[in-house]
Amino acid sequence: MEKYCFGIDVGGTTVKCGLFSTEGEVLDKWEIPTRTEENGKNILPDVAETILAKISEKKLDKAEVAGVGIGIPGPVNEEGEVPVAVNLHWGYVHIVKEMEALTGLKVKAGNDANVAALGELWKGGGMGCHNLILVTLGTGVGGGIIVNDKILAGSHGAGGEIGHAHVEDGIADPCNCGNCGCLEQVASATGIVRLAKEELEASEEASLLREGEVSAKTVFDAVKAGDALAVRIAERFGKYLGKALAVFACVADPEVIVIGGGVSKAGPVLLEFIEKYYQKYAFSACRAADFRLATLGNDAGIFGAAKMVL
Amino acid sequence: MEKYCFGIDVGGTTVKCGLFSTEGEVLDKWEIPTRTEENGKNILPDVAETILAKISEKKLDKAEVAGVGIGIPGPVNEEGEVPVAVNLHWGYVHIVKEMEALTGLKVKAGNDANVAALGELWKGGGMGCHNLILVTLGTGVGGGIIVNDKILAGSHGAGGEIGHAHVEDGIADPCNCGNCGCLEQVASATGIVRLAKEELEASEEASLLREGEVSAKTVFDAVKAGDALAVRIAERFGKYLGKALAVFACVADPEVIVIGGGVSKAGPVLLEFIEKYYQKYAFSACRAADFRLATLGNDAGIFGAAKMVL
Repeated sequence: MEKYCFGIDVGGTTVKCGLFSTEGEVLDKWEIPTRTEENGKNILPDVAETILAKISEKKLDKAEVAGVGIGIPGPVNEEGEVPVAVNLHWGYVHIVKEMEALTGLKVKAGNDANVAALGELWKGGGMGCHNLILVTLGTGVGGGIIVNDKILAGSHGAGGEIGHAHVEDGIADPCNCGNCGCLEQVASATGIVRLAKEELEASEEASLLREGEVSAKTVFDAVKAGDALAVRIAERFGKYLGKALAVFACVADPEVIVIGGGVSKAGPVLLEFIEKYYQKYAFSACRAADFRLATLGNDAGIFGAAKMVL
Repeated sequence: MEKYCFGIDVGGTTVKCGLFSTEGEVLDKWEIPTRTEENGKNILPDVAETILAKISEKKLDKAEVAGVGIGIPGPVNEEGEVPVAVNLHWGYVHIVKEMEALTGLKVKAGNDANVAALGELWKGGGMGCHNLILVTLGTGVGGGIIVNDKILAGSHGAGGEIGHAHVEDGIADPCNCGNCGCLEQVASATGIVRLAKEELEASEEASLLREGEVSAKTVFDAVKAGDALAVRIAERFGKYLGKALAVFACVADPEVIVIGGGVSKAGPVLLEFIEKYYQKYAFSACRAADFRLATLGNDAGIFGAAKMVL
């Protein structure tokens, strides 16, 4: 009987690893470095080695291990193929084939943001739901869509790449993706700083944000302190994201929208600004979607990866 | 062995019915009236009766019938429940439960636009693909999303309701859905007439469109004749729809985008205006999506309905 599974979250500098019970309990959690040299050729062998070492250390029977799920920072198709993963220095890699050969275990692979969405659905902010949109507000805007408990990977591994939805015609400088006016440019931590700078330059109005360096954190701290200029920034942020989520909901019609990433540490106040505009622009049937904060933090990836093989 | 299946497309005035081989060949096609009186209580019994009569007429063995798929003009959830279908005068109906009891056959139900998308995937413009967005440009804008050969129904039956995506802040009059600035208000046949009126009023420029009544058809006929004002209307239409599809693609990452409905009779020229702006705004990985015209016309619904039970 299958009792265990592994959830692996491969990042650009470290690989997060988790040993889980099939019920979703974390039995062990550790990290190994991501060796990106020589086109990252050691990454998968290193992961395989640490898994086999853990099986041996814990004296597990391999027949009791349901498999290994892996999240990767790059596009991954349904079959577990990666065309290219810049942060890992990878060209084409067939993760599932390679890892199954290296470990002798069943392997599933997915894009890290999509995998994190599955983690939040399983044991995080979306627990108990079957259809979810996860938005990760960090340096960029990541996203993952779950439809009927499954990751929407898309035909080019770009399913859930909502950070690159076009939302603003008035931005002339390009996003990392090359396009101009992406959601990421106005709703990420960096995007919030962009909006803050615009508001600070547009007037001489007194604001807590005129002292020290501006960040997404100082903006939402100022919002909590009742700073009028900071509230205007939060309104603009909320309008961009809430309106975009209303459009995404016309496609995916989620049960729950989970907001994670560093910016989400601002707490419930963040949801208020997003939900207000979501409600304004959403199609009637989609307005019932619930807004929640992510709860798994950096562990969402290993949870979701583990869930993939169950 | 299962050799046959039925595809049923329930509309507000007629019910289209098809008897198919499991390979997707149409063996018979007919219509019955939709009796909406008395809260549409006769609709499902009428459908059941015509199916059982056809089985008897064709001397089919019920064991050889894979089942009955039904498309409905309203939201339908994964279980085949309809909360309300205004055009059928229905309140809550559990289609699958009722129809299985009436026919003794396996039944699946879906929203008509989503079902049409499945039809186009199976035997129409999206044949051979697994991930598709269907856009139906008629009086309104309908849509259906297929992910891995399955309809994306959504948690409130509103999956693929892309006609109600917000695309324009500058529209003050409400859409049928109650919101303002929906894609349907600028990209449907009615929406194209709206854009045409705006362009005609904005200048005194000579145009073929100044003679007679303006419709989506006369606009695209004028485009084909090289009318500059008509081309500007088509550009605006193409920008709205192409940009919106680029956003939808960040969510669903389709292999193919199929354009159907009455407006699509304009032919390949229509795709040019849409694709140009899609390419401009789409995330790089999604640009590989193929644009095609729908090929099944009004039969997409019965094809998709039949496919649901296979």
